[in-house]
Amino acid sequence: MTIALEREVLPRNLSVPGLVDAVSSLSDLLVGRRAAGDRVGFVPTMGALHDGHLALISRAKSESDFVVVSVFVNPTQFNSREDFDKYPRSIEQDAQGATVAGADVVFVPPIANMYPPGGLTQVSLPDLSGVLEGSSRPGHFDGVALVVTKLFSIVGPCTAFFGEKDFQQLQIVRRLVSDLFLPVHVVGCETVREESGLAMSSRNQRLSREHLRAAPVLYRALLRARELIEGGESNFDRVEAEMTLIISSEPLADLDYARVVDCETLTRPDHLADQVRVLVAANFGGIRLIDNLGARVGGSDMKGRS
Amino acid sequence: MTIALEREVLPRNLSVPGLVDAVSSLSDLLVGRRAAGDRVGFVPTMGALHDGHLALISRAKSESDFVVVSVFVNPTQFNSREDFDKYPRSIEQDAQGATVAGADVVFVPPIANMYPPGGLTQVSLPDLSGVLEGSSRPGHFDGVALVVTKLFSIVGPCTAFFGEKDFQQLQIVRRLVSDLFLPVHVVGCETVREESGLAMSSRNQRLSREHLRAAPVLYRALLRARELIEGGESNFDRVEAEMTLIISSEPLADLDYARVVDCETLTRPDHLADQVRVLVAANFGGIRLIDNLGARVGGSDMKGRS
Repeated sequence: MTIALEREVLPRNLSVPGLVDAVSSLSDLLVGRRAAGDRVGFVPTMGALHDGHLALISRAKSESDFVVVSVFVNPTQFNSREDFDKYPRSIEQDAQGATVAGADVVFVPPIANMYPPGGLTQVSLPDLSGVLEGSSRPGHFDGVALVVTKLFSIVGPCTAFFGEKDFQQLQIVRRLVSDLFLPVHVVGCETVREESGLAMSSRNQRLSREHLRAAPVLYRALLRARELIEGGESNFDRVEAEMTLIISSEPLADLDYARVVDCETLTRPDHLADQVRVLVAANFGGIRLIDNLGARVGGSDMKGRS
Repeated sequence: MTIALEREVLPRNLSVPGLVDAVSSLSDLLVGRRAAGDRVGFVPTMGALHDGHLALISRAKSESDFVVVSVFVNPTQFNSREDFDKYPRSIEQDAQGATVAGADVVFVPPIANMYPPGGLTQVSLPDLSGVLEGSSRPGHFDGVALVVTKLFSIVGPCTAFFGEKDFQQLQIVRRLVSDLFLPVHVVGCETVREESGLAMSSRNQRLSREHLRAAPVLYRALLRARELIEGGESNFDRVEAEMTLIISSEPLADLDYARVVDCETLTRPDHLADQVRVLVAANFGGIRLIDNLGARVGGSDMKGRS
C-alpha cells in the first residue's frame, strides 16, 4: 500500500516508562547490552498484544538476557488505508503487558522514522509471497520483508521469536534471514489458542459474538486434516476437499483457501515429504482469519527403510 | 542473470596466506576484532585489482584498525554468461596486492556459499536502478544490491569504501544502507585515473591499444561539461549535446549516454541544485566504459542571497 507515511494515526504518549522511540537510541542501547555480554531476544509485533504475543515475550525472556519488543503498525504491509486505520491500537496497555511478560524495552518507532522520505529500497521473496495469503493480499509480504529487514538491522544480532500462527510469514522471515546472512536466529513458537480452539489474533476483537462462535470451525477443519494425513491419507486433494466441506458447513464462514503444503516451499508437497503444513483462511463478517497446523505424513517413519 | 551458481570459474587455491573463504569464519573473526575495540574497514571488490582499488584499501587502512577486502565476482550482476566468464580473474595477485595495500584479510567466498540453493530473496531500488547503466544492463543493480546486502550482513558494522567511478552504484549503496538501517558508514572515494585521464577500471585491460588511446575522450568530455556548468551554463541539454559531440568525434567510441543528473535522484536536476553529476558511458570495441565527474552549478554560491 502507498500510504501517507508522515501521518501518525495514534496520539503518541511517550511518557510511559520503558518506551524507546528513536532508532538510534535503541541501537546504542543494544550495542551496550551486547558489549556487556547480554544475549538479545526480540519480539516484533504490531501491538494489540494478546496471550499469543505474551507467550512469545515470556519465551524470549527465558532464552535471552535482554528482551526488546517492538510495537509498530507497519503501513507497507496493509492492502488498504481502511484496514490500516482499523487495526487495533493500544500502545500504553501493550507497553504495560509486554513489560509484565518480560520485555526490557518496548520500541515504538514513529512511521516517519521507519520510513523517512525518499526511501526506495524494496525487499521481496516473490516465490513465497505470491501464494496463500499473498494471493489475496498483493504486496503484503513485500511490506513484511521490508520492515523485518529494517527492524533486524536496527536491533542487530539477536534471537527473534515469531508465532507459527502466521506460518507463511515465519517461513518468509526464515528464508530472508538465511538468504541475506542476517545475524538473527529465528524461533517459531506454537500458536496460542482460546479454549474454543480459535487461534489468538488481534483481529479476533473485531469479530461479532456470533462470528466468534463460528470461527473455531477453522481449527476443527485443521484437526481433521491432520488426523487424515497422519492416518495415512496421501491424496492431499481429498484432504483439502474435506477441510472445505467442514468450513463450508459453517454459514458464517466465507472460505478463501484450505491447503496442504510443503513446509519450506509452501507449494504442493512432493512424495518424499515427512512433514507438511495444513493452512486455512476465511472471512467472518469481513474479518479475515488464518490458522494452520503441522502434520506428519502417515507412515513417514517407515520411509528410509523401504 | 540466471547463472549456474554451482559452477566455479576459477580453480581455487586457498593456500595463499590471509585468505578466508567461509562466511562463518569471517563473521567470527570480525566479532572478535570488534570486541577487542577495532574499527572495521571494508572494501568490496570483484578482484582484478588496479590502483583505484589499492587507493580504496589504503584509505580504509588509514581510517580503520582492521581491513577486510572481499574478492567476489558476483554472478547476479552480470547480464550475460559471456561477460561473467570473461571478467578478468587474478585471485593470488589480488590477495598479494590487497595485503601490501593494507588488507588484514581477503575474503574470497565460493559462489555456492554466497548463493546457496533455494535463495529467493531479492533486494532492489527500482527508481535508481532503471536509469543510466541500469537501462543498458537490466537487473544489474538488483544483483549489486543483493550481494552488497549479503556482504554487509556478513561483515557487520563497518566503514565501507567505494569508488566514485561507479557513481550510480555508490548512490544505490548509500540509499540501500540508509533505507535498511544497515550499520555501515559508506565513504565514496575519488576516481583514480591513468595519466591520460582514463578512469582506472578492470575492464581497461581488455581494450586494444588503439581503443586504449581513444578512451580518454570520455574524460575530456566530462571536463568540458564541468567547465560549462561551473561557468554558468544552466541549459543541461546544451551541456549534454556538447559532450555528445566530443565523444562522437572519436570514431572508435560508440556512445551510450552523456547525462547531467541530480546527485541523489540520478534524474534531471531541478533549478535548486547546487551540485550536479555528469556521467558518460560508451563502448570501445565492445568493451563498455563509464566515467563521471561532479560539478558545482555556476553561481550557486549566490543562490541564497537573491
